[in-house]
Amino acid sequence: MRVGELSKRSGVPVPTIKYYLREGLLPAGVLTSPNQAHYDDEHLRRLRLVRALVDVGGLSIASVREVLTAIDTRDESLHSKLGAVQEAISQPSAVELDPLAIEDVQGFFRRQGETECADVTESNVTHMLAAALTVARSVGHDHFRDLLDPYLEGLKIIAQADLEYIAGRGSRDDVIEAMVVGTLIGDTVIKAVRRLAHAQVSRKVIGDGSDS
Amino acid sequence: MRVGELSKRSGVPVPTIKYYLREGLLPAGVLTSPNQAHYDDEHLRRLRLVRALVDVGGLSIASVREVLTAIDTRDESLHSKLGAVQEAISQPSAVELDPLAIEDVQGFFRRQGETECADVTESNVTHMLAAALTVARSVGHDHFRDLLDPYLEGLKIIAQADLEYIAGRGSRDDVIEAMVVGTLIGDTVIKAVRRLAHAQVSRKVIGDGSDS
Repeated sequence: MRVGELSKRSGVPVPTIKYYLREGLLPAGVLTSPNQAHYDDEHLRRLRLVRALVDVGGLSIASVREVLTAIDTRDESLHSKLGAVQEAISQPSAVELDPLAIEDVQGFFRRQGETECADVTESNVTHMLAAALTVARSVGHDHFRDLLDPYLEGLKIIAQADLEYIAGRGSRDDVIEAMVVGTLIGDTVIKAVRRLAHAQVSRKVIGDGSDS
Repeated sequence: MRVGELSKRSGVPVPTIKYYLREGLLPAGVLTSPNQAHYDDEHLRRLRLVRALVDVGGLSIASVREVLTAIDTRDESLHSKLGAVQEAISQPSAVELDPLAIEDVQGFFRRQGETECADVTESNVTHMLAAALTVARSVGHDHFRDLLDPYLEGLKIIAQADLEYIAGRGSRDDVIEAMVVGTLIGDTVIKAVRRLAHAQVSRKVIGDGSDS
């Protein structure tokens, strides 16, 4: 298909597609004449993925590039690829970490038998966690750390479902794309469903009629 | 304390404090002379809450105002206040909803015996959920909806921990503040801990050594 049809089928304006091509987020089409290129379904698929990363994930172009690099690297186990993708889509926080919050994270990792992340500032993911606990502490919620263990317990149920979902995809490319999409879209879905879970549990615990 | 000390103790620059005062996010101090006001610990506390909403929640000034209104409204049950706060901190999405994604959400609610949200576009929370499923569908993940039920199962464990945490706070003001902080900071913590849960479960399921 030509760029116009690629635009029509993806809903992405032509100038944006050209921008992605220049930024290397989308591989070049096959030239059919000096100023006309041909694109196929793989381009369409990659374009939709880039849009999902930008629109749902709110990722910067640089982060999208990192994610695509992680996806396209062939010589990695799926486990380490999942780790690389998750690093790429986690934005490092600008918050200056409270040393006590760093200790909270380290204590949590020790309890969980995680030895990989001794330095929490080395990973975007653990940095994000320490930053959230830093803010919690700054508003007087030092004990927010006590929620980490039950959170992990609930999130393991979710991770199990995620991995079954991912494993059910056909090809290896599908699996990897499902990881990225599942992680990003999953974050938003979790946010929304968490509200419903709160409503259901609070109706049971607090009741919805009278003031407590 | 004077505005300079309020700034020092909160880490918020004086011009920002004055902006919050003008926007009504922070109640005025008590005037001790025509151009000098006195602030107390309640101001400090509210200021830190506003910062948490802006910094961690990424909320706009308008959303912060909505959250504070929900917090300050006296004549509501805790259950409905929790609902109002969660609406206020959920950003409506600009995505045009796919009717099939709306059906996915409605089917999920029916299975869960939820009858309150017949029109998913009426609530920011359900709109966010339908928007995420719309994007999932656009990248070929129609079956992402199958994850909603296991997600809710895991999130109920988390909600239970959240509500116990909230109930453990002393005064009613503390409880309400804990809801807001817990929901927002919790979203970020969940994002980070979900990565750890993925790592733990994928090590078990996929293995971390060889390529699958």
